[in-house]
Amino acid sequence: MKAFSWPVRVYWEDTDGGGIVYYANYLRFLERARSEWLRELGYRQSELASQLGLVFVVSSVRIDYRRPARLDDELEVHCRAHARRSANIVFAQQIVRGDELIAAAQVSVVCVDSQRMKPTRMPEILLRQLTREEPMPA
Amino acid sequence: MKAFSWPVRVYWEDTDGGGIVYYANYLRFLERARSEWLRELGYRQSELASQLGLVFVVSSVRIDYRRPARLDDELEVHCRAHARRSANIVFAQQIVRGDELIAAAQVSVVCVDSQRMKPTRMPEILLRQLTREEPMPA
Amino acid sequence: MKAFSWPVRVYWEDTDGGGIVYYANYLRFLERARSEWLRELGYRQSELASQLGLVFVVSSVRIDYRRPARLDDELEVHCRAHARRSANIVFAQQIVRGDELIAAAQVSVVCVDSQRMKPTRMPEILLRQLTREEPMPA
Amino acid sequence: MKAFSWPVRVYWEDTDGGGIVYYANYLRFLERARSEWLRELGYRQSELASQLGLVFVVSSVRIDYRRPARLDDELEVHCRAHARRSANIVFAQQIVRGDELIAAAQVSVVCVDSQRMKPTRMPEILLRQLTREEPMPA
Repeated sequence: MKAFSWPVRVYWEDTDGGGIVYYANYLRFLERARSEWLRELGYRQSELASQLGLVFVVSSVRIDYRRPARLDDELEVHCRAHARRSANIVFAQQIVRGDELIAAAQVSVVCVDSQRMKPTRMPEILLRQLTREEPMPA
Repeated sequence: MKAFSWPVRVYWEDTDGGGIVYYANYLRFLERARSEWLRELGYRQSELASQLGLVFVVSSVRIDYRRPARLDDELEVHCRAHARRSANIVFAQQIVRGDELIAAAQVSVVCVDSQRMKPTRMPEILLRQLTREEPMPA
Repeated sequence: MKAFSWPVRVYWEDTDGGGIVYYANYLRFLERARSEWLRELGYRQSELASQLGLVFVVSSVRIDYRRPARLDDELEVHCRAHARRSANIVFAQQIVRGDELIAAAQVSVVCVDSQRMKPTRMPEILLRQLTREEPMPA
Repeated sequence: MKAFSWPVRVYWEDTDGGGIVYYANYLRFLERARSEWLRELGYRQSELASQLGLVFVVSSVRIDYRRPARLDDELEVHCRAHARRSANIVFAQQIVRGDELIAAAQVSVVCVDSQRMKPTRMPEILLRQLTREEPMPA
């Protein structure tokens, strides 16, 4: 399974009055990492939408919050992906601060036709890029 | 000039690590009041967009923050409007907590054609509804 | 098990470029309903924090997104609660639009000492209020 | 006057149903750049708060929105600062996309004692760092 990682800095906007990152905002961090992974593979979601009419919609999230993140923290968001069906990818994601686990999540994403909002096959090449095994080193 | 008012409760999502409402979030409160005013006048922005291709875009904001709002506060957002041109409305808005002024803002909004994102006349009736003088009581 | 319900209107701030409510923002809606339930039972979280040093922290979320909500939608957020331990409550929540299910969630919340961020018993009376069976009508 | 610049990528979370960045979210971008400037000068706001009891509070914003930013845009946020008084700094900020001006803002920030929320002198060295003229090259 391929993996990807993306850094996220915690700003005032992310925190709440309890002095920690607001629980919904970790989902924003998770999505930035998924978006940047697609970008690294050569896909801009704005183009997928305008040219192919494809949008990725989240169908479920399971997230466990282990330790609170705080203002100024520099977090790292890890992603792995595996395909369940040709329209459906599950991302296993972790948010870490150094070697501390902040949150662990499983995010299911469906590729939909943006006009009809119906599931549709994602491009075969993208599916393989996200989910293929790393080639074995020679 | 007509006036309108809308209540807003402060939740965790609105606060930041300083224990007060995050400065950008007051702009969300201001917009809710403008949206509810339109709704009271009989306009749903989703319908204005889908049926008439009209979207209201903010062109400028001037906001002075006077006192911090905090978790659980019950705020009131006041609006008044005056037209500058047929595509352009200026809203004078205040956010208050009881008789304390929390923030005062002036928000300029332009009516645009959602396809071309170019300024366009808003419906004459809406313009009058938002900006007309209250009829004198008999 | 007691139940509670709270209305939520969808504003521009809640939507994303796909024209639907952004997936993280449903967690804000869920939290508003939990906060309002506490308020109805007589608890202000700002006072629980300042007077008793108690804060409720979300430890996990499981959410399934069934249908997209859109601008101007009027949603209803339902809550039920059951205690697992004296510091831990699980909320079963649903977001509906009329008779359509938009999202179903299970949110685990831990009562923590706000200084040490360690789990602590919540007030017995609150625990009972949130989780007791409705009294049988005579 | 010193200057600073910080890149910001536009994600789904930043956009709204109109397909453009939601007007309040530009204020989040502006604040990230101010926070990163302080960081570059050697200040972490979490430490200023915990060690010196100093918090920066925004007292006013004037922002003109010139062109909409969209999903996937890579923006640059420019900052300049000048002191008005020892507790008060005005930031002139611009958000640009390549050579296009997206938004121009003037943000007034007050240094306050986080306990009493009263204006207080900021550290002299910080004031000079933010506002001094660049040394002339020899």
